[in-house]
Amino acid sequence: MFVKVSIKFFFFKLFLNFGASRVNHITVFMKNNDEILNLFEHYLGQLQLPKEPQRLYEPIIYSMSGGGKRLRPVLLLLCCEAFGGDATAALSAAAAVEMFHNFTLLHDDIMDNAAVRRGKPSVQARWGENVAILSGDTMMIYSYKLLSQIPSEKLPMVMEVFTSMALQVCEGQQYDMDFEERQQVSVVDYMQMIELKTAALLAGSATIGAILGGASAADCRKVYRFAQELGLAFQLQDDLLDSYGDERLGKKIGGDILEGKKTCLMLNAMSRATEEDRDILRHTHLDTTLSDEEKILRVKEVYNRYDIQRVIEQQISLRFDKALSVLDDLSIDGDSAEHLRVFARSLMGRKK
Amino acid sequence: MFVKVSIKFFFFKLFLNFGASRVNHITVFMKNNDEILNLFEHYLGQLQLPKEPQRLYEPIIYSMSGGGKRLRPVLLLLCCEAFGGDATAALSAAAAVEMFHNFTLLHDDIMDNAAVRRGKPSVQARWGENVAILSGDTMMIYSYKLLSQIPSEKLPMVMEVFTSMALQVCEGQQYDMDFEERQQVSVVDYMQMIELKTAALLAGSATIGAILGGASAADCRKVYRFAQELGLAFQLQDDLLDSYGDERLGKKIGGDILEGKKTCLMLNAMSRATEEDRDILRHTHLDTTLSDEEKILRVKEVYNRYDIQRVIEQQISLRFDKALSVLDDLSIDGDSAEHLRVFARSLMGRKK
Repeated sequence: MFVKVSIKFFFFKLFLNFGASRVNHITVFMKNNDEILNLFEHYLGQLQLPKEPQRLYEPIIYSMSGGGKRLRPVLLLLCCEAFGGDATAALSAAAAVEMFHNFTLLHDDIMDNAAVRRGKPSVQARWGENVAILSGDTMMIYSYKLLSQIPSEKLPMVMEVFTSMALQVCEGQQYDMDFEERQQVSVVDYMQMIELKTAALLAGSATIGAILGGASAADCRKVYRFAQELGLAFQLQDDLLDSYGDERLGKKIGGDILEGKKTCLMLNAMSRATEEDRDILRHTHLDTTLSDEEKILRVKEVYNRYDIQRVIEQQISLRFDKALSVLDDLSIDGDSAEHLRVFARSLMGRKK
Repeated sequence: MFVKVSIKFFFFKLFLNFGASRVNHITVFMKNNDEILNLFEHYLGQLQLPKEPQRLYEPIIYSMSGGGKRLRPVLLLLCCEAFGGDATAALSAAAAVEMFHNFTLLHDDIMDNAAVRRGKPSVQARWGENVAILSGDTMMIYSYKLLSQIPSEKLPMVMEVFTSMALQVCEGQQYDMDFEERQQVSVVDYMQMIELKTAALLAGSATIGAILGGASAADCRKVYRFAQELGLAFQLQDDLLDSYGDERLGKKIGGDILEGKKTCLMLNAMSRATEEDRDILRHTHLDTTLSDEEKILRVKEVYNRYDIQRVIEQQISLRFDKALSVLDDLSIDGDSAEHLRVFARSLMGRKK
């Protein structure tokens, strides 16, 4: 089977060399989203991390094999293939963004004192904080090691995108922590924060894939915007589902409300509410006379008074539609665009 | 003055183009160690870090401007110039290794719960642990940002050295923490640990400088060995001075003994001592009936019984002489070698 693909690929290269433009023939070689995911999981499974020191590398293997949806590497590989690149040659870069993402989880879990990650004990809960710090550091460095395995002529540009993305994630995390202590946070502040903390990583991953696939600078910018809008929609939906999700899907509702988190729901409600309702929004989670259920109910009553669910749903749709509209404007064939659309839909996909 | 240098440089380049071998003419352009340090401090002073978010970048500026001997960047720049490179073009790489070194201090101080660094409150003591984690992460990423400003054709090789060095530092730190909990640690284990934790960073910095200066692969390997041996001598001396330093120099003696740390003194003593003396070495720091002075005295009595000070001094001399002997074997002119010798001596220089 591999031989067959290789021969096909040989003819395809020949065909390209004759200067034909990019046409539907590419689709013969394109992988669909499941194939991309399988390819990536197979690569990760074969990745040889050092064995020693055990307490440094064991938590890394635990973290990297702990599931997760592999959104960022899959998006990177899809974008690479969309521009005619070979996903196989981009696997180390895909692993780099996944390793980086998992590094942020290790350190975020220390900062949030989170005991559980993906249904299992977090690294800091299982091995302690010092191990989580140092294994996290190692993962971040290792992500650069993986990244530097790409063709050297593309390394400077990819490094720039990766490093800029990584700094934005740190800045977003800092703003997120700052917001907890700040009295006044606007909806605009919040959108800028999630653009850094959540959207930058998707946008950077997509752009690295596009660069590796050979996209033009103009297309790289568009791919960035596509993934950025998608990332914003994704985060807004994440906030929405925390208060309005379907309990039957096993997710507990109201965690953000009980923590008094400044989510997009809270901030949009604050910007619309009367002073009296604002007081409810500000103080309900601190009210020790109320049960958890009563707190959630009381805050959601205020949300409902200002139709916050619909407001956020509209914002999500706006972002999502913007993301998809950028796709129509890319110099890629129809099947590639469809793969990216499938990805975008599945990302948002708790409700199809 | 700048014009003069440029014209000289032009003729020098011309001269090189005629295929002449590297001769003493180079020394006209070479900077001595103080000039190198000044050049570096000036570069750091001009470095524009972002202003926002303030709680992310302020601790980074605090850490980077908090003194320190700038050993690693100076060594990098000296090695660059030794092979005929221009230190000015290597400043971003020098800043990268200094930024990386300071990142390790931020995270080490969390792991060791250290309140003081270079006579000032540590970042974690001043801003809290979460800030120290996240600002540290940002410094590490920023070090890659600085690194990627070098000429792109050298980026892949320099990245490889930098990343390998960074991983070794993390591994060394993990072994160091492991040793605290392990009963049995040999002198060999210890030497391997400090090779990773301390020597790798000096060796990597020197090698990056050599690469940027245009050294051959063989010379790069020698430069690595020079700095590695020097780094080992430096760490052994650091251990020695903690127990046998000069109190008049303001440094408090005996900290390692009071912590029961497995230093090279302790491990060499353990390998030579009778079972009775080993018991003293193992348990004295835990003995609540003794004052600090009595504890230090009792352990040093055992050290003295086995002549540990002389044993370690011999090991230091051996490493130091090895380092210097590598210098004689490099394809660099006499003045460059002398600059590196001056650096090596000043590094060890509490006693000349």
